[in-house]
Amino acid sequence: MNADFVNAFVDATTNVLGTMASLKCVAGKPHLKPDKLTWGVVTGIIGMGGEKVNGNMIVSFEESCILKVVSAMLMEEFPTVTPEVVDAVGEITNMICGGAKSKIAEKGYNISMATPIMIAGKGVEVVQFSKSPVIVIPFKTDSGGFVVEANIAPQG
Amino acid sequence: MNADFVNAFVDATTNVLGTMASLKCVAGKPHLKPDKLTWGVVTGIIGMGGEKVNGNMIVSFEESCILKVVSAMLMEEFPTVTPEVVDAVGEITNMICGGAKSKIAEKGYNISMATPIMIAGKGVEVVQFSKSPVIVIPFKTDSGGFVVEANIAPQG
Repeated sequence: MNADFVNAFVDATTNVLGTMASLKCVAGKPHLKPDKLTWGVVTGIIGMGGEKVNGNMIVSFEESCILKVVSAMLMEEFPTVTPEVVDAVGEITNMICGGAKSKIAEKGYNISMATPIMIAGKGVEVVQFSKSPVIVIPFKTDSGGFVVEANIAPQG
Repeated sequence: MNADFVNAFVDATTNVLGTMASLKCVAGKPHLKPDKLTWGVVTGIIGMGGEKVNGNMIVSFEESCILKVVSAMLMEEFPTVTPEVVDAVGEITNMICGGAKSKIAEKGYNISMATPIMIAGKGVEVVQFSKSPVIVIPFKTDSGGFVVEANIAPQG
């Protein structure tokens, strides 16, 4: 996956969490995903289809982090992961992918977004059917971490 | 979700399993998904994005059924679910969605496909972020059952 795509996801993630939850997040060094398991306690997945490239984007949050984000977004304290928190992860997944989609389009790759799917639970086996590797972008915040995992490959 | 979409998934599923695994499958009555859990032991998910509509398609197999299908497809006996079986579910998911995509395009809806993601395990919580309901199409074969779950809704 080329550096433009990685930068698009980093910028979109930083913008969305800054705007929606006033949360500053710092991206770490991207690396290959070492396993096939969900990283955090709630995970959002969204498919991306296009003429030249297609793939998926995944966002997966540590519990402390998603509770902070959703409490700020919805202006209501969430001390545990509820169905509202899981739905909010879908909304966040949609917004991050939408932001990245615009930046990826500027590089000449038009993609259409599917609708998000959320998986509750850490360590769930999720296997990507793709010839290209999955890139993990780790993020840190004052309230814990999360990862964005992206896999975009040429069609066919 | 309109009847044309349901018929597209039924036809594509019947064609793919007939062609790839010489397996006759009979579709039951479509109904609303009653829960948010994976139905079978291996589940394939694929996102679909388009200008007018977007969504996801899910295929989820009972163990006896997927072992029969993959053993026939790969011409090798698989007595248990291995990583090859999980990968084959990704391939099947791709082919069914590709077939349905052509039929859906004939009705005036162009969609682009993401790449499949597979979830191992029955009863995993998978929540769809969509305003429209998820339709379940149950299928029976001589070697057990599977379901196709589809959710396609107008954009926005």
